[in-house]
Formats: sequence, structure tokens, C-alpha cells
Amino acid sequence: MSNQEALIEQLRNIVGDKGLLTGDDVSSRPNESWGRGSCPARAIVRPASTEELSAVMKLCHAQGQTVVPWGGLTGLVDAITCREEDVVISLERMNTIEHIDAEAGVMTVQAGVVLQPVHEAANDAGWQFAVDFGARGSAQIGGMIGTNAGGNSVVRYGMMREQVLGLEVVMADGTVISSMNEMLKNNTGYDLKQLFIGSEGTLGIVTRAVLRLRPQARSVQTAFVALDSFADVAGLLRRLGVELEGKLSAFEVMWRNFYHFMTEESGKHQAVLPTNHPYYVLLESEGADPVREEEQFMAVLGTLMEEGHVADAVICQSSQQAAQLWAMRDDVETLIHATFPPAIFDISLPIREMESYVDDLASTLAERYPGTRMVTFGHLGDGNIHLGIGPVEDKHAIESLVYERLGQVGGSVSAEHGIGLEKREFLPHSRSPEELAVMRTLKQSLDPGNLLNPGKIF
Amino acid sequence: MSNQEALIEQLRNIVGDKGLLTGDDVSSRPNESWGRGSCPARAIVRPASTEELSAVMKLCHAQGQTVVPWGGLTGLVDAITCREEDVVISLERMNTIEHIDAEAGVMTVQAGVVLQPVHEAANDAGWQFAVDFGARGSAQIGGMIGTNAGGNSVVRYGMMREQVLGLEVVMADGTVISSMNEMLKNNTGYDLKQLFIGSEGTLGIVTRAVLRLRPQARSVQTAFVALDSFADVAGLLRRLGVELEGKLSAFEVMWRNFYHFMTEESGKHQAVLPTNHPYYVLLESEGADPVREEEQFMAVLGTLMEEGHVADAVICQSSQQAAQLWAMRDDVETLIHATFPPAIFDISLPIREMESYVDDLASTLAERYPGTRMVTFGHLGDGNIHLGIGPVEDKHAIESLVYERLGQVGGSVSAEHGIGLEKREFLPHSRSPEELAVMRTLKQSLDPGNLLNPGKIF
Repeated sequence: MSNQEALIEQLRNIVGDKGLLTGDDVSSRPNESWGRGSCPARAIVRPASTEELSAVMKLCHAQGQTVVPWGGLTGLVDAITCREEDVVISLERMNTIEHIDAEAGVMTVQAGVVLQPVHEAANDAGWQFAVDFGARGSAQIGGMIGTNAGGNSVVRYGMMREQVLGLEVVMADGTVISSMNEMLKNNTGYDLKQLFIGSEGTLGIVTRAVLRLRPQARSVQTAFVALDSFADVAGLLRRLGVELEGKLSAFEVMWRNFYHFMTEESGKHQAVLPTNHPYYVLLESEGADPVREEEQFMAVLGTLMEEGHVADAVICQSSQQAAQLWAMRDDVETLIHATFPPAIFDISLPIREMESYVDDLASTLAERYPGTRMVTFGHLGDGNIHLGIGPVEDKHAIESLVYERLGQVGGSVSAEHGIGLEKREFLPHSRSPEELAVMRTLKQSLDPGNLLNPGKIF
Repeated sequence: MSNQEALIEQLRNIVGDKGLLTGDDVSSRPNESWGRGSCPARAIVRPASTEELSAVMKLCHAQGQTVVPWGGLTGLVDAITCREEDVVISLERMNTIEHIDAEAGVMTVQAGVVLQPVHEAANDAGWQFAVDFGARGSAQIGGMIGTNAGGNSVVRYGMMREQVLGLEVVMADGTVISSMNEMLKNNTGYDLKQLFIGSEGTLGIVTRAVLRLRPQARSVQTAFVALDSFADVAGLLRRLGVELEGKLSAFEVMWRNFYHFMTEESGKHQAVLPTNHPYYVLLESEGADPVREEEQFMAVLGTLMEEGHVADAVICQSSQQAAQLWAMRDDVETLIHATFPPAIFDISLPIREMESYVDDLASTLAERYPGTRMVTFGHLGDGNIHLGIGPVEDKHAIESLVYERLGQVGGSVSAEHGIGLEKREFLPHSRSPEELAVMRTLKQSLDPGNLLNPGKIF
């Protein structure tokens, strides 16, 4: 028996037959974003408990075996990609919602639990879980913590980081760090959980989490508005911040090139407003009382229209109408089709830089790559926009163009998707050599053997 | 010239005469919380810029000179205490508000700026800064970041951590880490700023920060209510979370022993409600429209009274009346006088454990230390309560009593004050040996010479 075979058998002894996949059960799983590729790893280990994972990591640590932690594989930056010599750690069997404190609004889960059941359990307990996005049927809480997932409600509730009160993590050497804090306030030394959130599985493997729930909204108001200048868009965001008293829960901007394409040009979605305005915003407010809420929402938008800051507006009369607008916003498929082969970007930058950044980029693209389309949209309330550019022949040249300008205006090459393998080369546009050196120091001190998701981020 | 004298002269060469204090200018400053003691340090170095501090730390690093970073000295856990061999780094001359982006609600400051001017500048720009507490005239932003300061509005806006978008930090070896991010979303590798926030100056010295501002409130509603059971208190918090739609900005609970003492017994404050109920809550809501806001506030409280969950209530008719209630809540002086010599605690624990924890502690105290008073109050919305116990003869015995029970219910020995020297011994009640080992690993990797605030936290 080779060393390699011996390791597999030792792993099987820890996690049992059900906990170990090899051969076709591995190669039938993907190796890249969007479900592409075939996983070449030695095995997929599926521990049933923190204790099992701890034993697995002690073994891997002793033998220098690298591991790639997997969540629901809904990430977009190839942070789950394996080499032949890697072993996958999948938390998919650790998918229990352990406890809900309905008085305090706190939920304790295993890391492999999927987002959708978390939403459902929170709702059943009279609360809501505040991070949501299209992949809710597959994304796992552990992966969402490892990537600090964002979504559409960040403007109100923050990213995944703001929903995590406590964590349990298995370290590279198998040590279990339990920081299962349940309180909003806890200033007892370093806040270790912050280190693991968003570190893409390179510092430890999240096994359990204490999640903060938010009060349930009984009323949601949705509107789609047209604006005639970027200054109006920024002004609208600011005014709604004051006038809606913190209840603004989504502020999704579409440049005309996105809206016009999704409606008139592609014919995929209905144009609820004329398509000749330069900017559109899909906005949402969450409150307690439908009647009071609607009154307030109408009054605020009415005033903004009277003052000339909003050019046109549709206020959704039903959740169905709102769902149609969200379907347009989230129609990544049509976007990819129109720009195929596409380059999709997830960037953030100060709002004051946004208009000229996007305009300059569009001009340069038109000049250098005539026939290439760019559509722009995103969570402007968080400084986060997405760009869809294509068809792209030389992806690397387009990436360089997008990221170089971004670094100059204090922007970020990844707002919410992370770095993984895909953006590794471009990380220096957003992080200084000194910052990268500190990151490497941290990695070295917590995972000196470079066993955890090697090669990801840097 | 001794080595010691030589170092002082080298420091003087970097920061100039104005930047260096020695002799009486050092010993006239305090060495403990509450302004007690006399600072025994070799010198107080007051750099005027990040570059100066970087040069100072390079020198100290080369010579193995330990440093103690100082903010406004308003902390309560002796995190600024020096030994004779230490040098103080005070950021008091780096007190400039560098920039306000009034469109985005972002403020860039030097770390030595005091909280009060930050509030004023934010207000002038049409925004608010969301952390506030009594020591606003002295507390510095850098110290507030280093200690992850809390305060009265955490239930709505979070602690200092949630107000920091970006940081600049000088490391133990003088390296400057600039992570002056301005965006809400930035997933480019490890979120380094999180490491420094709340680490009490043991990992780096904060020199500049990008602060997140919040929309200004144009209307504040304040009420003082009496409740007949702890279940009603917890239920009120939950109901207001839903009914006030996230606008609840303070939820300060007083056990009867606090309220009765502050009013009838001490005669210091007016009793606006009868003092025979077991619990009282001072609560506040922030919104945009005074008329709509008052209507909503009255309606919600009216319903809760009709349903029997609130026993009695006063809704403040003026900001003066609200200020009087807040003055009672914040009257630490009267509290200390009544329990002198006192032991004051800042703890957090799950709300479901709170009633029995406090009751059990009170019984044990009454049994073992007859004649000792305990008053209980705090930010219950954050799971954070304060205990004032006294007169205390054997402080250590009382501390052990409070903290031992706390560890058993998943509580924290420090909710918002930090660890410093004062709570170092009790940290293991809230943190496991594995957590402490990771903290030590981090400290060792970023400050291997143990130069930064040595002996604090652990």
C-alpha cells in the first residue's frame, strides 16, 4: 500500500465510508466557478462532527497533507479549485440548525447548513436572517463566512461579518477554537472570529457559528426610479438614508446600458419606465406597518420628484411586480449571453469617483475594443458595482484595464466575491506591499505548513 | 551620557522639543484609571505625524524599547499603565480632521482627534457619528478604536468596530500599514483593520482612521417605563425591535435597586415614576419626522401598556426632561459614593441567563457579605449590564464571585471596557486555553519583541 493509499484508509477510519468519497464521486464534482471542470483531488472528506474534522486535520497536519475546504460551491473566484495532491474537506454532512434563541434572536448552526433553511428557520421563529442572494438554495453558511458574503441588503444590515456573533474553527493542526459568543458586546482580548471571516479557508475551517437574527419586516416597499444625472443618484441615496430612517434595505443602480439591454434590446424583461434615462435605481424599504410604511415611502418619493431629483418612478403595487424587477436585476444568464465570452467584475470604489471611473472606462473600451459591450449595475449603496464586459478575446488585458484605474482611485478589485485564484494577480492593485506582508505573516503564524487552501488569495 | 539618556536625545531629534515630555511633565500625568497615580515612564513622545511615529518605532524597535500607547485616558481597565522602563506614545498632537466626504458620509481623521469635535464636524456636514458616551470631551478616536468602545447606541449602530471603514497603523518595527478603505464592501484578502480594533494597542498603534458616518436623526423620542417582570423587559426589547423598525437607539435597563437608590434614597434625581416596580427601562428612538415619529412611538407604547407588558410609562415632552433621565442613568459619581469603596463591573451574558444570574449573585452577596449593596443597570439591548457592588473590603473575592458564575453561563468578563491590566487574571473565565494560545501566536507574530503595551490583556 502506498503512502497515499494509507492516508486515505486512515481518513476512512476517522470519518467512515459515508464520510469519504473517491474516484468518480470526486471527479464528477466541479473544480472551478460556475460548476465547470472536474475535481482532481485525492478524496473528498465529509466529517460528521467537529471532533471528526479535528482528527482529520491532526492526521493531515502530521503528514503534510494539503486540504481545500468546500462550502456550497457558489463562489465566483475559484477559491475551491483543487490540485491532484489536495484533499477536499466538505462540510455538507454538518448541516444541522442546532438551536434558536427566539427571545434574543440568535441562531446556532453547523457550518454546512444551507442558506435557504436558515431563512426559513429564522422566519418560523419570528425573525429574519439578513444576508440573501440568488444562490440561497446551495450556498452554505460556512462558505458564506469564509468569503464574507454580501448580497442585496448590505446597505441596511451589513455583510456576513455583521451577522456572525460567534464561531468555532478547526485550525491547520486540528486544534478546535471555540468562540461561540452570543452577545453583541464582548471585549475580551482579540476578536478572533474576525480573522477567519473572509479569509477564504486559508486560516482555519469554520465548523459552527452563532448567527445574529434581525427583527422581521412585516412590510416591504419597492420602487423603480429613473434619474437624469449621477449626482441625482448619489443625492437620492443620501436623502433616502435620512428620510427612510435607516429602513432603506436595497439600493440597486442600473446604468442605462444595463436596463435598456435587459428590456427593449433583449426582450427578456418588461420596460416599466422609458429606457432613455441615464440611470435607474431599484430601491426597497423594510418596515413594520404596511399602511404607515406606504404613506411614508410615497411621500418621500413624491417630494424628490417634485424637487426634480427623480425623473420618473414606478412604485410596486404587488410583491409580484417587485419580483419581476428583481428578476431583471438578477438575470445574470441574459447578461452573460449578451457578452459571451464575458468578463464579469465585482469592484468597489468611493461613490464620488464612480461616474468618471465608469465613463472613462467606457470610452477607453470603445476606443480600444470597438464592438465590445459594457453593462454597469450594482449595489451602489455599498460603493459596489458590477461590470459585464464582452465579448472578450483577451480577458487579461480587460482585467488590467479595469483594475489599474481602480487602484488609482482607492477602489477595491473585489467588493464581495473575494480573491481566490482568479484575482490573486490583481490583489496588489488594492493592497499595499506592507498589507500583503502582514497577511503573509498571519498566514505563516497560523498555518506554517501552508496546508489550508494553499495558493488562494496569495 | 547613559544609553537611556542617549535614547531620549534620539527621540528628541525625531519629534522635536515640543514632541517630547520628561520629568514633571510626565509624572504630573496619571498612571491608572480615573486619573489616579503618577506616570513613571521615561518620557512621553508626542509625534506630529505618522512619519515621525514610524521613525520613533524604528528606533524603539532597534533598541528594544517598550512603549505604551495613550489615547484620552478615559479607559477603565488600566490599559495605559506604565512601568519606569516604558515610553509613552501619545497621539494628542495628531488631532486633525483631515477630510469629510459629505456625499458619502465618510470622515478621515488622525487618531488623536477627540470624540466631541468628531460629533460636531459630522453634524455640521449633515451626518452623525454614532458612538457616544460621557467622556466625549477627552476620549480620542485612536483609543476608542484600540478599545472597541461601546456606549449607549450600540443596539442600533454597533460598537466602534462598526464605525471604522479604514485604518492606518504603525507596527512594532515602525512599518506603516495603510488600509484607508472608504467603502462598505472590500473583500480583498484578510480584513487587517479588525485585528487592531479592540486589541488595546498591543499589536500596532492606530494613527489615522476612516470613519463611517450615519444619517442624521431629526427627531428623538425618549420614554421611561416601569415593568413588573424580567420576562416583560426581554419581551419589550423584542417587540420594540419589530415595531420601531430598527429605529430603537437606546434600551437602558435599571433594576429597582438602581432607580430607587438614585431617586428616593439619595435624593439626587427626581422619581418620575413610582419606585416600587422591579425593572425600569430608559428607551429612545431616532427618526426623521418628529410628528410621524411621536405618533408611532406613542402608539407602540400604548399598545404595550394595554396588553399589560408595560406597567407604567413617562414619555418625555422635552429634550430637557430626556436629559434629566440620562443624567440619572449616567450618574456614576453618586453610585460610587454609595458603594465606596466600590467594585464596578462591565459584563455581558445571554439575556435568557440574566435574571437568574443577577438574582443568584444578589442572594450570595447578601448571605456572605451582609451590608454590601449591589445595584444593577446597563445596555440590556446588547446583553451588557453593569454592576456596582460595595462597600467592598476584599475586591478580589467579589471579582471571583462575579466572574466565576459568568463563565458558566457563556458570559463575558468585559462587554465594552476591555481587559487591560485590571481583568487580565479573569480573562480565562471568558476565553478558552485554545483561544488564548491563538491570541499569543498573533501577538508573537506581529510584535515578537513584546514592545507594544507589554503585559496588557495577557
